[in-house]
Amino acid sequence: MDKSNASVAVVMGSSSDLEVMNKCLEVLKEFGVTYHLEVLSAHRVPHAMLDFAQQAQSKGFKILIAGAGGAAHLPGMIAAATILPVIGVPIKSTHSLGGFDSLLSIVQMPAGVPVATMAVDGSANAGLFALQILALSDSSLAKKLADYKIELKNKVQQMNQSLPKV
Amino acid sequence: MDKSNASVAVVMGSSSDLEVMNKCLEVLKEFGVTYHLEVLSAHRVPHAMLDFAQQAQSKGFKILIAGAGGAAHLPGMIAAATILPVIGVPIKSTHSLGGFDSLLSIVQMPAGVPVATMAVDGSANAGLFALQILALSDSSLAKKLADYKIELKNKVQQMNQSLPKV
Amino acid sequence: MDKSNASVAVVMGSSSDLEVMNKCLEVLKEFGVTYHLEVLSAHRVPHAMLDFAQQAQSKGFKILIAGAGGAAHLPGMIAAATILPVIGVPIKSTHSLGGFDSLLSIVQMPAGVPVATMAVDGSANAGLFALQILALSDSSLAKKLADYKIELKNKVQQMNQSLPKV
Amino acid sequence: MDKSNASVAVVMGSSSDLEVMNKCLEVLKEFGVTYHLEVLSAHRVPHAMLDFAQQAQSKGFKILIAGAGGAAHLPGMIAAATILPVIGVPIKSTHSLGGFDSLLSIVQMPAGVPVATMAVDGSANAGLFALQILALSDSSLAKKLADYKIELKNKVQQMNQSLPKV
Amino acid sequence: MDKSNASVAVVMGSSSDLEVMNKCLEVLKEFGVTYHLEVLSAHRVPHAMLDFAQQAQSKGFKILIAGAGGAAHLPGMIAAATILPVIGVPIKSTHSLGGFDSLLSIVQMPAGVPVATMAVDGSANAGLFALQILALSDSSLAKKLADYKIELKNKVQQMNQSLPKV
Amino acid sequence: MDKSNASVAVVMGSSSDLEVMNKCLEVLKEFGVTYHLEVLSAHRVPHAMLDFAQQAQSKGFKILIAGAGGAAHLPGMIAAATILPVIGVPIKSTHSLGGFDSLLSIVQMPAGVPVATMAVDGSANAGLFALQILALSDSSLAKKLADYKIELKNKVQQMNQSLPKV
Amino acid sequence: MDKSNASVAVVMGSSSDLEVMNKCLEVLKEFGVTYHLEVLSAHRVPHAMLDFAQQAQSKGFKILIAGAGGAAHLPGMIAAATILPVIGVPIKSTHSLGGFDSLLSIVQMPAGVPVATMAVDGSANAGLFALQILALSDSSLAKKLADYKIELKNKVQQMNQSLPKV
Amino acid sequence: MDKSNASVAVVMGSSSDLEVMNKCLEVLKEFGVTYHLEVLSAHRVPHAMLDFAQQAQSKGFKILIAGAGGAAHLPGMIAAATILPVIGVPIKSTHSLGGFDSLLSIVQMPAGVPVATMAVDGSANAGLFALQILALSDSSLAKKLADYKIELKNKVQQMNQSLPKV
Repeated sequence: MDKSNASVAVVMGSSSDLEVMNKCLEVLKEFGVTYHLEVLSAHRVPHAMLDFAQQAQSKGFKILIAGAGGAAHLPGMIAAATILPVIGVPIKSTHSLGGFDSLLSIVQMPAGVPVATMAVDGSANAGLFALQILALSDSSLAKKLADYKIELKNKVQQMNQSLPKV
Repeated sequence: MDKSNASVAVVMGSSSDLEVMNKCLEVLKEFGVTYHLEVLSAHRVPHAMLDFAQQAQSKGFKILIAGAGGAAHLPGMIAAATILPVIGVPIKSTHSLGGFDSLLSIVQMPAGVPVATMAVDGSANAGLFALQILALSDSSLAKKLADYKIELKNKVQQMNQSLPKV
Repeated sequence: MDKSNASVAVVMGSSSDLEVMNKCLEVLKEFGVTYHLEVLSAHRVPHAMLDFAQQAQSKGFKILIAGAGGAAHLPGMIAAATILPVIGVPIKSTHSLGGFDSLLSIVQMPAGVPVATMAVDGSANAGLFALQILALSDSSLAKKLADYKIELKNKVQQMNQSLPKV
Repeated sequence: MDKSNASVAVVMGSSSDLEVMNKCLEVLKEFGVTYHLEVLSAHRVPHAMLDFAQQAQSKGFKILIAGAGGAAHLPGMIAAATILPVIGVPIKSTHSLGGFDSLLSIVQMPAGVPVATMAVDGSANAGLFALQILALSDSSLAKKLADYKIELKNKVQQMNQSLPKV
Repeated sequence: MDKSNASVAVVMGSSSDLEVMNKCLEVLKEFGVTYHLEVLSAHRVPHAMLDFAQQAQSKGFKILIAGAGGAAHLPGMIAAATILPVIGVPIKSTHSLGGFDSLLSIVQMPAGVPVATMAVDGSANAGLFALQILALSDSSLAKKLADYKIELKNKVQQMNQSLPKV
Repeated sequence: MDKSNASVAVVMGSSSDLEVMNKCLEVLKEFGVTYHLEVLSAHRVPHAMLDFAQQAQSKGFKILIAGAGGAAHLPGMIAAATILPVIGVPIKSTHSLGGFDSLLSIVQMPAGVPVATMAVDGSANAGLFALQILALSDSSLAKKLADYKIELKNKVQQMNQSLPKV
Repeated sequence: MDKSNASVAVVMGSSSDLEVMNKCLEVLKEFGVTYHLEVLSAHRVPHAMLDFAQQAQSKGFKILIAGAGGAAHLPGMIAAATILPVIGVPIKSTHSLGGFDSLLSIVQMPAGVPVATMAVDGSANAGLFALQILALSDSSLAKKLADYKIELKNKVQQMNQSLPKV
Repeated sequence: MDKSNASVAVVMGSSSDLEVMNKCLEVLKEFGVTYHLEVLSAHRVPHAMLDFAQQAQSKGFKILIAGAGGAAHLPGMIAAATILPVIGVPIKSTHSLGGFDSLLSIVQMPAGVPVATMAVDGSANAGLFALQILALSDSSLAKKLADYKIELKNKVQQMNQSLPKV
């Protein structure tokens, strides 16, 4: 599971979050960024979670992505123990309150401990935001992101071509 | 600050939470229960917070009360590291989302790690609930709580006597 | 239905709540705690409900768990008539307002009458919280809860082993 | 406090609710309907509350109006123990969740036990609705209500006369 | 459609609301109360709607029940043109905002024009509340409602008998 | 009050709404558009309200602007009785549910009867939107609106000049 | 895709929004109004989007309709770059927060840049509102809208005829 | 206003947002990071806004921070036109819906265009998060952030020393 040379670590509260977090992993893979993937629950393995956060920098990670649902403490607690940028992904689950619980638990962090919060179930953007940070010192990645922006535009063009004729 | 023989520990994310948590302290004092009071932020002193939670049982605490606002992780994170009952008090702050953020951050805990959540700013009830637990093995306290129930009734009677005459 | 020697009573507003409350019952069974189970509606049998609450202590119950949906008055009304700790489980039903109605009806209790509120549909945690209270005076149960904490950790490890290889 | 011949009973959870409920009392007075006024807390005097509800019919009350804030159980619990029409007034208090807690606690009653819910802090309408019910068998009151409708119209005309000239 | 001697009129914004409103009709039938049923949209037939409301009293109706979804104006607009008691049923539809839109559109009426609001999709209670009003001057109906209360109790007993043995 | 040659009618539920609606009036004045102003309550003068809506077209009005709070039925009810474009302004009042009640009551109109809803308390935009419609057949007004867009830009420039120096 | 002589342009953030927007297109077709249809994402083709908005007037469009979900910026951004009336349709998507996100993102526009917001998924009304604007200078269309109002009434009558007999 | 060598650009929708954004500026100053400050409204200067975003990279900015209230489109629209990391700050204003509007407008971005969202009014954290990104390639800044974490801890200690003695 430990992946040397990974610049991004993706953690999530439970393996059931993998379905949502997979979009993040796909983005990272697509852009050729190696990542470390780990189930890491703030509530079930609090010490391992804090250890992970505290050692993240020395292990060579540059960015930490954390997805969690309900009373989603994982992103904020990791942010508490590292100076690395932490990106949070609120996950909407069956028994959650429409996603509001995970969103508010992640985004409403107190001054001093920021978590960069993405949309509910917005794990693809967590990957992209990590890439945007990495691209600041990686011109090849920056080029790929610029190309990706063009792709986004092209997709709109394609959508337009497949629209039913008025 | 450390109080030997205290059965209840009251922690809060910031000293600015004291205004709300004071009602809890008053309840405990009124019933003669010694408590330990500490500012203990999940986000600013995460290790101290986990240490506190992990050692709480051996230090003789029986019940932990935690008040926090915004993305209120303190009650849930303490609950993650102890088997003692943890009571959470959501605190409504100026920049919070009407108290919904702290309430949902505290109450929506995942299966396995319960937090007994009180009303927004409901710290008096946190104290009372702690007393109710302690009273299970303290018949003198149980008696006081029964008397308190009668007091509640008497207050209603007094309110009725001071109503304006129709 | 009446179970002598039960330390925990689990009540719910309707037999349709059993599906959610079953997780609570399973937790109690798993830890070998006998419980009393009863449908007890605040709105349909208000007197029986108050009688139950008032006699709960003398019947030997130590903790009362109440699950209810919609305008969920059962936990709060039981708490009104006993000094025993009452744990409330908000239940999300089809016609409810996303669970917000039952959550707010249970958690927003006035000062003087606390209800320990769990997550929406969080009945497993109601059972666990009851166990945490009982464990204060039952070292064998405390040991089991400590073991359960280890199990929670092990499950995270197992989840990690079953993650798809990066 | 006890008022013989009163057809409407107005109860509220606390004397602090009087400020809001006063508008209800004024409406009743204005239309010459005698009322009984009482602080009657579901959570502090649950037995007295149920007794009140159960005896309401035999005491000659025709309509019960109940105002409460937070986890507002009073209207629903009274409705549980009477077949008289119960009108509920959600009261917005400082620590409440914007009034949503009292509104949802009162309005989301289960099938079988209706509470006629008014707007948040809408106690004047509780009085008016009571009058509308009484007017079904009181043609003089019906006449007054018809006149009141005309007054409402006249007020709009007066407002228009006092508008700044364009 | 026009039913002479009906004391209750049940109107709804669209025939698609019939599914929800049927529970109201069943309650009225069960208690032997004749009703008038009509689709009557505030937005599609505003004049007919106002005419209906204005003539309701002279037609012999005593109580008006109105169900509507989304920006649910039907109950409030009918209440604007009659002094008869109007009972509103918020209906949750597919494109509505979780039922909050219809609930708030119906319950938040201004002072002067009350609507007795029931729970979201709570049409059975609309019927019952109408019966409670009618029972004020119909002792036979009052007797039936008292019996219904006993039935509610009996159902709880039956639920308890069918609970799985612990 | 009646203003011949006015192309825009501005109505509101109560004279207390004038404070919010004044911004709309100022916008109309600023662009030299004559307007008719009237208090016109859906709930207090329903027939006058419908008459107004029905006669609006023949009176020469082109656009109707309606502001209302709480269960805000005025915009939707006017829209029900005219084919003129109706612009709705949700007004946040003291006892309202944070503005959500008026917003949802106005915007969630059923298919067939549109109301162009503005932001909560956004009456200035109601005026501007009316101007945008009028400008479709008034090139002088279109020119003024284009100039106004430039003004908006200039204000940003002015704001930048008055920023504190870094 | 480009349609000369179209007076209405309908744009949407993604081709997946077509399902909702189709009701708008059907309304326009039914009334014989030619429209231009285009996928035009504020976030994926921001420059093309602004160009579209800026050139809309010179291309002969009179009204712009924009549908979008989530953080729905399309309607507001188009409104920023044109003086034409812009009608916004909030679209509820799977991962959205119950439609509240798109509604609030569209309706809460700042003073100076109005967007006429329709109900969540209310695209049929967007079409109708456009027609109402066009009808101000097209008496034949005004006639059709008046007929449509009659159709709405007739549908209510038909619904009443198909109601189950009481 | 243009500041050469600034690595962070802070933009906001209006100069009235400066009060909230000042905390961000103070953080940047405290850590010796030069910034560019600009009022840049998505709705009032859309072209200048897009130009700014598109040229941001070539101007040497590394991180863009955008604060906005209501239908807050600024952060998302800037993110649409740059591959630089964009940090969004939802601002709660008087007429906003409790901050929910700006939060949801900023955080619920579609896949492809991430915005790192901070808490409502959480501009200090926007500054800190920018610093965390910059520190990835600036060991001196990383050292300062590590020191800042220690300061956060010390503040907790100080708070504890100033607590009232139990």
